[in-house]
Amino acid sequence: MQIDAVDFFYLSMPVVTTEADGSQDALLVRVRAGGHQGFGECEAAPLPSIAAFVCPMSHGACQPVAASVLGRRLDSPADIAAIAADVAYNSMDVLQAAHTFSGIEMALWDILGRARGEPVWKLLGYERSHPKTPYASLLFGDTPQQTLERGQDAIRRGFRAAKFGWGPIGRGSVQQDADHFFAAREGLGADGILLVDVGQIFGEDVERAAQRLDALEQARAVWLEEPFHASALGEYGALAKRSRTVRLAGGEGAHNVSMARHLIDYGGIGYVQIDCGRIGGIGPAKQVADYAAARGVTYVNHTFTSHLALSASMQPFAGLQAHHICEYPAAPKALAVELTANHLLPDANGQVTTPETPGLGMTIDAQAVRRYRVPVDIRVAGRTLYTTPDFNA
Amino acid sequence: MQIDAVDFFYLSMPVVTTEADGSQDALLVRVRAGGHQGFGECEAAPLPSIAAFVCPMSHGACQPVAASVLGRRLDSPADIAAIAADVAYNSMDVLQAAHTFSGIEMALWDILGRARGEPVWKLLGYERSHPKTPYASLLFGDTPQQTLERGQDAIRRGFRAAKFGWGPIGRGSVQQDADHFFAAREGLGADGILLVDVGQIFGEDVERAAQRLDALEQARAVWLEEPFHASALGEYGALAKRSRTVRLAGGEGAHNVSMARHLIDYGGIGYVQIDCGRIGGIGPAKQVADYAAARGVTYVNHTFTSHLALSASMQPFAGLQAHHICEYPAAPKALAVELTANHLLPDANGQVTTPETPGLGMTIDAQAVRRYRVPVDIRVAGRTLYTTPDFNA
Repeated sequence: MQIDAVDFFYLSMPVVTTEADGSQDALLVRVRAGGHQGFGECEAAPLPSIAAFVCPMSHGACQPVAASVLGRRLDSPADIAAIAADVAYNSMDVLQAAHTFSGIEMALWDILGRARGEPVWKLLGYERSHPKTPYASLLFGDTPQQTLERGQDAIRRGFRAAKFGWGPIGRGSVQQDADHFFAAREGLGADGILLVDVGQIFGEDVERAAQRLDALEQARAVWLEEPFHASALGEYGALAKRSRTVRLAGGEGAHNVSMARHLIDYGGIGYVQIDCGRIGGIGPAKQVADYAAARGVTYVNHTFTSHLALSASMQPFAGLQAHHICEYPAAPKALAVELTANHLLPDANGQVTTPETPGLGMTIDAQAVRRYRVPVDIRVAGRTLYTTPDFNA
Repeated sequence: MQIDAVDFFYLSMPVVTTEADGSQDALLVRVRAGGHQGFGECEAAPLPSIAAFVCPMSHGACQPVAASVLGRRLDSPADIAAIAADVAYNSMDVLQAAHTFSGIEMALWDILGRARGEPVWKLLGYERSHPKTPYASLLFGDTPQQTLERGQDAIRRGFRAAKFGWGPIGRGSVQQDADHFFAAREGLGADGILLVDVGQIFGEDVERAAQRLDALEQARAVWLEEPFHASALGEYGALAKRSRTVRLAGGEGAHNVSMARHLIDYGGIGYVQIDCGRIGGIGPAKQVADYAAARGVTYVNHTFTSHLALSASMQPFAGLQAHHICEYPAAPKALAVELTANHLLPDANGQVTTPETPGLGMTIDAQAVRRYRVPVDIRVAGRTLYTTPDFNA
């Protein structure tokens, strides 16, 4: 097969607010090759991502992503890796390129799987896909009582795991934070899996983060996510050394394999959270999964948008049975729900399984694409470099 | 003062090729505040960088750069730092944002310096600016004889330092590489400062890089630049430990302070090379200079384009007397030369000094901007988000 076309569809809710909800818009990517079409999704700002695909060349190492993708051969996973390597080299100085390519790369796997009649995780070398335990992402309440009730609600909704995040944590006293951790544990019950995300609140202050470890441990939190800025490797490492049972989690911002490896090697994290829509797609995410598994670090997907993104993000660790916790978009916006005609729903045990169907196993809803599509036109030197195509064109 | 306007001018040579020459196009930024105007230059792909400034918001941490810049107060260096912090937070998920903001940030310093009648390096806290020794960037020849002649030519042109890069190094035998290193030394003479750049040729192979250390040492190379991929921190660190006199250099791709610090902390580099047009501007570059100086690491600018970019890139280490080597665009394209009406020329000693005049001390040539300007139009949902303005508007 040869890659014939790459098209981007910028989708958006009618109103986008500053709330921390990444499902308010989406950048859908459609790739066509050898009579097949595949889909992917960038977890990225749509307009700069499209611009990085179509921009004029600045010099040899600052070429548009298109230059390394269009017309290329696509017959094997090795072809995808070769294209990825060329993007990394030829677009080295286009910072946005990794985000742009992430959605394209997913679509390439989707096509290859469809052409071979196999799910992507088989192409990645896994024999089977293991069910994952989805967790609900919740905010800490304003009061411990609210936190407790949110935990109870998640359990009622069938979740066996919940991640509490942000809210008042790190803004008041150590005891106030402890009260929230204990309330979260009480809400989930003794068997619930408790995860805590503090959204970089401690900046680079190891001491303040360390003061919370005792309570987190007593509440049996499995991980403490993003205590510091994503690149505060030394601080991660120092805190990791001081923790006995609670392991650190991070990595959602990684836009290449090295960033994730550094969090493992220097940051001492126990859970590495990868967004396939940012790190360059499924191939690099699988590299991180292999690297993590070999070092006793658990891989977790980072997914906040559609079930297309969810399927893509589950492929890299579908076959790793022990790595069973899975981020699951708990309350996405309508656009993210409607984008796919099918969905990855929890089974009777409350678990989610990566599709057994070819490619990524997801069907795009054309009506939804048309409903949420935002037309984009980019002209440079009087020439149209990009105009949103018809979805059925 | 209040920031009233930020305008981008995409400039390009009529023909852009794949040669490794970053001066084939430019993204000039003009900022207006309080009746002053200042200029900066992104070392970046112009179209995605403009898109990152004007793109619609995706969510709270994926806002356009404009949201954190327009209308802001600009009365002190602290105001610039506050804007930079907001860009980092509000545009956390816009990968391109650091490149976009780099040129804006330079322009903010330029305005502040002009308003106060002081050069930027004084605003950064330096008492005086010290002359720097510019080096000529050369390619290794196809043969050692060619390498030797290129070195001789640089000395004849008045350079006391030269950096040889790329070419056949790492592609043949250890002895062939050694012959080139010795030829470069011979060409520069005993007193010439010899720098070597191998353009990431050894990937992650420490052994192959280490095999070159003896010859580099005998040729008295001061630094070995980019032996590995920019993020191969462990490999950098391993090679640094094996080198006696030759120190490692790297950092040109850093798009935040942490990346540069990691090369120092984990990579063991002896020279940190920062491009102000990528790292977020002059403020973060000064942070790297301070961090480096405190750890016995030497700061060097990375500059490949206009003298506006050169002036900006010299400010962060203008006052560090011992950090005296300076990258100097040796053969830029006409656009990069013509962009400024004045230039930072070597003095009788062959040295270059950061301007003593207010701001960045450079005057933009309006004719050149009009001559090389590439019109850009970006429309989203039928609304024009960006159209190249008149330069005098």
